[in-house]
Amino acid sequence: MLTLYSFGPGANSLKPLLALYEKGLDFDQRFLNPAVFEHHEAWFKKINPRGQVPALDHDGRIVTESTVICEYLEDAFPDCAVKLRPADPWETAQMRVWTKWVDEYFCWCVSTIGWERMIGPLARSIPDDEFEEKMKHIPIPEQVTKWRNARAGFPKEVLEEEMRKVRVSVARLEARLAESPWLAGDSYTLADVCNFAIANGMEKGFADVVNPQDTPHLVDWIARINARPAAQEMFARSKREVMTPRKTEAA
Amino acid sequence: MLTLYSFGPGANSLKPLLALYEKGLDFDQRFLNPAVFEHHEAWFKKINPRGQVPALDHDGRIVTESTVICEYLEDAFPDCAVKLRPADPWETAQMRVWTKWVDEYFCWCVSTIGWERMIGPLARSIPDDEFEEKMKHIPIPEQVTKWRNARAGFPKEVLEEEMRKVRVSVARLEARLAESPWLAGDSYTLADVCNFAIANGMEKGFADVVNPQDTPHLVDWIARINARPAAQEMFARSKREVMTPRKTEAA
Repeated sequence: MLTLYSFGPGANSLKPLLALYEKGLDFDQRFLNPAVFEHHEAWFKKINPRGQVPALDHDGRIVTESTVICEYLEDAFPDCAVKLRPADPWETAQMRVWTKWVDEYFCWCVSTIGWERMIGPLARSIPDDEFEEKMKHIPIPEQVTKWRNARAGFPKEVLEEEMRKVRVSVARLEARLAESPWLAGDSYTLADVCNFAIANGMEKGFADVVNPQDTPHLVDWIARINARPAAQEMFARSKREVMTPRKTEAA
Repeated sequence: MLTLYSFGPGANSLKPLLALYEKGLDFDQRFLNPAVFEHHEAWFKKINPRGQVPALDHDGRIVTESTVICEYLEDAFPDCAVKLRPADPWETAQMRVWTKWVDEYFCWCVSTIGWERMIGPLARSIPDDEFEEKMKHIPIPEQVTKWRNARAGFPKEVLEEEMRKVRVSVARLEARLAESPWLAGDSYTLADVCNFAIANGMEKGFADVVNPQDTPHLVDWIARINARPAAQEMFARSKREVMTPRKTEAA
């Protein structure tokens, strides 16, 4: 029995979601609503004390960290016909260089810009006393800092530095995809799943950086993954969070 | 044929070094001297274009990233009697939570303090023109920034924040080791190898944080790993870098 606790099909939650759909594994999806801080509620912190999604419950044993969950699915279901990790050890190492890079570099710069644009207005729409109460339930100090920075607005120089890193990241992906159909080589692997989790939607959110003229291979790769039956099924069947600011007066 | 390009047995270089000694694999160690920026020389950037050690050459195929190399050794030598990755997929996932955490959190805060103390004085002893020339050969912009920050001295608030993270990290390790002999559970794994790479020596460099009174389990774990035959052989046989400032006058 597999239960995935996650937000909607974007960012880190997308990684194990897409891997599960690709592999055709039967699972329950338990959607948590980040707009009401559901992942910091006591019941969920019993599942993951760090108050982070995604988290996978496999027959009562919990696996955390999106990339770790993806590799776990490869290890725990060795008879599954769909493999998202190469058979060759060297190719697996190339895959891991990419899954590590997205977790250590690419995801953070995109995340900061996303928090500035999406979480900031939401955070500012929450009354002070309620906001402070919510902060008390966040187990990771860096997450509290991120919420406070988003609410105040990230400093201009931070946003500029993060945008520089976004451009570096996009250039790295484009260069790789100009020479190879998939990030780790000839086959579609977790390198693609995990980087797609962050890159998908950048043609809209970062249109000046990711577009058919400047990054044709990256745009094509995003389209190819979106067209996969597993991705289409995932998007069709998954709830999505709504992170709009609260209305200050009754609607 | 295995060749490991690395610095001495500390930090990221220690991870694959110790894994190779633990597994008893025959390999050539090619020591690079960071004090003369050898890892940014053209010959080495042909091996790793990012100019980073460690890098492993296995029959002409290059594997980079210390943690990726460690997992590669498990994948590429499945018949090796010594396993540093658990057989159970869930235990492997726990191992990866720890190897991921050291790469994303623990290593960075310890590194900044180390750069402030060790690299700063060295960087300041290099004449301006030579320093600028060296910076031109570093492929990763963030590494250039780190060298410049170390040379100027990191801002006080950065050092305070990094020390806070060091204390958070040490508390997390101590709590885990109080409940389990090894980080991923009952067996010694890459979780221990990779975290030991950063934690070893902290009883000296961070004596106010890591000491027998405050962190008895962490100190004991460090001692247990140091006592392992593989660790003793590694330390006895490996060159070490000397990062002292250059003498400004002829000695």
